Amino acid sequence: MRTQIVIIGSGPSGLLLGQLLSDAGISNIVLDRVGKEYILGRVRAGVLEEGTVELIDRAKSGTRMHVEGLPHDGFSLVFDGRDHRIDLTGLTGGKRVMVYGQTELTRDLMERREKSGGESIYDASNVQPHDFDGNSPYVTYEKDGITHRIDCDFIAGCDGFHGVSRKSIPERSLRIFEKVYPFGWLGILADVPPVNHELIYANHPRGFALCSMRSATRSRYYVQCALDQKIEDWSDDRFWDELRRRLPPHHADAVITGPSFEKSIAPLRSFVAEPMRFGRLFLVGDAAHIVPPTGAKGLNLAASDVHYLFSGLAEYYRDSSDSGINAYSARALSRVWKAVRFSWWMTTMMHRFPDTGEFDQKIQETELDYLTHSRAASTVLAENYVGLPY
Amino acid sequence: MRTQIVIIGSGPSGLLLGQLLSDAGISNIVLDRVGKEYILGRVRAGVLEEGTVELIDRAKSGTRMHVEGLPHDGFSLVFDGRDHRIDLTGLTGGKRVMVYGQTELTRDLMERREKSGGESIYDASNVQPHDFDGNSPYVTYEKDGITHRIDCDFIAGCDGFHGVSRKSIPERSLRIFEKVYPFGWLGILADVPPVNHELIYANHPRGFALCSMRSATRSRYYVQCALDQKIEDWSDDRFWDELRRRLPPHHADAVITGPSFEKSIAPLRSFVAEPMRFGRLFLVGDAAHIVPPTGAKGLNLAASDVHYLFSGLAEYYRDSSDSGINAYSARALSRVWKAVRFSWWMTTMMHRFPDTGEFDQKIQETELDYLTHSRAASTVLAENYVGLPY
Repeated sequence: MRTQIVIIGSGPSGLLLGQLLSDAGISNIVLDRVGKEYILGRVRAGVLEEGTVELIDRAKSGTRMHVEGLPHDGFSLVFDGRDHRIDLTGLTGGKRVMVYGQTELTRDLMERREKSGGESIYDASNVQPHDFDGNSPYVTYEKDGITHRIDCDFIAGCDGFHGVSRKSIPERSLRIFEKVYPFGWLGILADVPPVNHELIYANHPRGFALCSMRSATRSRYYVQCALDQKIEDWSDDRFWDELRRRLPPHHADAVITGPSFEKSIAPLRSFVAEPMRFGRLFLVGDAAHIVPPTGAKGLNLAASDVHYLFSGLAEYYRDSSDSGINAYSARALSRVWKAVRFSWWMTTMMHRFPDTGEFDQKIQETELDYLTHSRAASTVLAENYVGLPY
Repeated sequence: MRTQIVIIGSGPSGLLLGQLLSDAGISNIVLDRVGKEYILGRVRAGVLEEGTVELIDRAKSGTRMHVEGLPHDGFSLVFDGRDHRIDLTGLTGGKRVMVYGQTELTRDLMERREKSGGESIYDASNVQPHDFDGNSPYVTYEKDGITHRIDCDFIAGCDGFHGVSRKSIPERSLRIFEKVYPFGWLGILADVPPVNHELIYANHPRGFALCSMRSATRSRYYVQCALDQKIEDWSDDRFWDELRRRLPPHHADAVITGPSFEKSIAPLRSFVAEPMRFGRLFLVGDAAHIVPPTGAKGLNLAASDVHYLFSGLAEYYRDSSDSGINAYSARALSRVWKAVRFSWWMTTMMHRFPDTGEFDQKIQETELDYLTHSRAASTVLAENYVGLPY
């Protein structure tokens, strides 16, 4: 088999890249080690920047998102018992975010790919990129006991943090930056109406809490927890009680509870691998970088990587110029680092750190106080939250 | 002896408070354990916020400042070999700062006090505030072998970090917040023209450097140094070499060197004691809080404390209301903490920390990059630098 681009990973970044390439007449095959239903069963993020929405529209995959997604013009910052609204739209000259579950987006992209005849190979085990440091890269995989080989011009590694793409690059060629946070997020999904029509980010002496949603009838709630917590110790009742304790009364009283259908504890990590290109292999999204979920940047960073990589590849095939693909890593990383910084900052500002001294705690409280009283500081939060320009 | 207010400390905050009180017809005596010439020999800060300038004008002590002081509309942030101007005036709707040495300001305030007949007692040893938790406070001191006593309504502790005022408050009544930074500033004064007409704050892999000034012919330069450095190891030549290494070529080449007439190493510390009032004793300025010099907030915070305390005392005597003095600590601390946060942030952003990992170093570089590309983030820096509103 031969194609121009092999895309490893059928998550939203791989599918989005594939669709943009297909629509531009650049052939590609998407490979994933697991099946469609497995991918669609994963619980992921749900807040899209305008740039991400535009890219989805450009890939003609946004119809359902515009019907079912919830545009949000702001969110609430809660601390010290006070409720302060960050007016995203007012502070950024009209920008907003779109609440739409990553799972739904992935489904839309899969359907669009199917309809437009794009080739996806699921349940492809032992996927391996080869010879990407030369001029004739190829990818092998096994399916139904047979080893297959796809020759290509380039490989896009869209296979996430644990995927094979980054791991195939020689360790000495990558510089790793990493920070692990001393807490996790205990999250649930429940089919109950959200407590508020906008998201609530709460900093409370007992720890951070986030009231998010996937739709008008599906809520996503999180509470910061210690890393040694066990999911089986958290009954739904205990979770709802803990959530409500971290919210001011007018929100706590409005929480509608119900059985959770998903519950998990996720660690928080910042991670960046540089560069994002090695020869003819490009890393995209979580394969190259991870951010803590505070600020909802993970999926949006994957989208901006797709934007830069697609531009470079389109330029390569259209104009026979490699300047775009040569610039990919630097352009992507410049935006990645700004979002890594933002996610780190918002995480630091909103969580209670177990080893924080009194001085640092007071600095955190002062920062929240300043932030909510200064238009410039609120704008810093808002312009990062809606997404810095590509 | 009896007066309404005893002011301990004849630095700028004590003198400013005394003058405002005298002009409002409230009697006061300023006590200092050392002499005038000693006080005027101390090297101190030199960047005044507009609020500080207004307060000095209100105390009719600003004539020479307006002639000899240098209004600055901006400053330079230097990092990664780049020079980025922070347009203070453009970003804050017309605000600026005034470069005028604290020593000169102190001299002006002393002269004004003398001319207006204010009483100052210098070389007063063993100054002690008494009974300020009751209704009849008094202050004792010794001079020429005789112990004197001044009865008063209130005591203002303007005697700095090492002064007797804060130390007289029972330890259990104060909450202390403190952070010590793992480096110091090696600074010199030299009668050479400044390298630039505005201040330069430089973040360099070798450490922070600051090009400041006291006048058009007197320069104040600093380089970050390890805490174990000894002043005798730093010849003028070594200092100038180190300074120039931390500046980009166009600045380094423009540095005019000359013999220093002052050279010292100062540790960097953030410190806040709460509350700032204990009974009839009020703490003002460095007696209650210390900030690292990055951002030049120390003297300006002392001035805003004076503003709040003077308002409260004037209200007390004019309207027989104690609401202003009761609100003093909370009002002063709210602004103090914002400046403590700003000074901590600017220190953190501009210095190289000995134990910083690669992730944190990259976050620092990204923050500088973001700051200089975002108008909102530049405004955050500018509005804090010129001083938040009282």
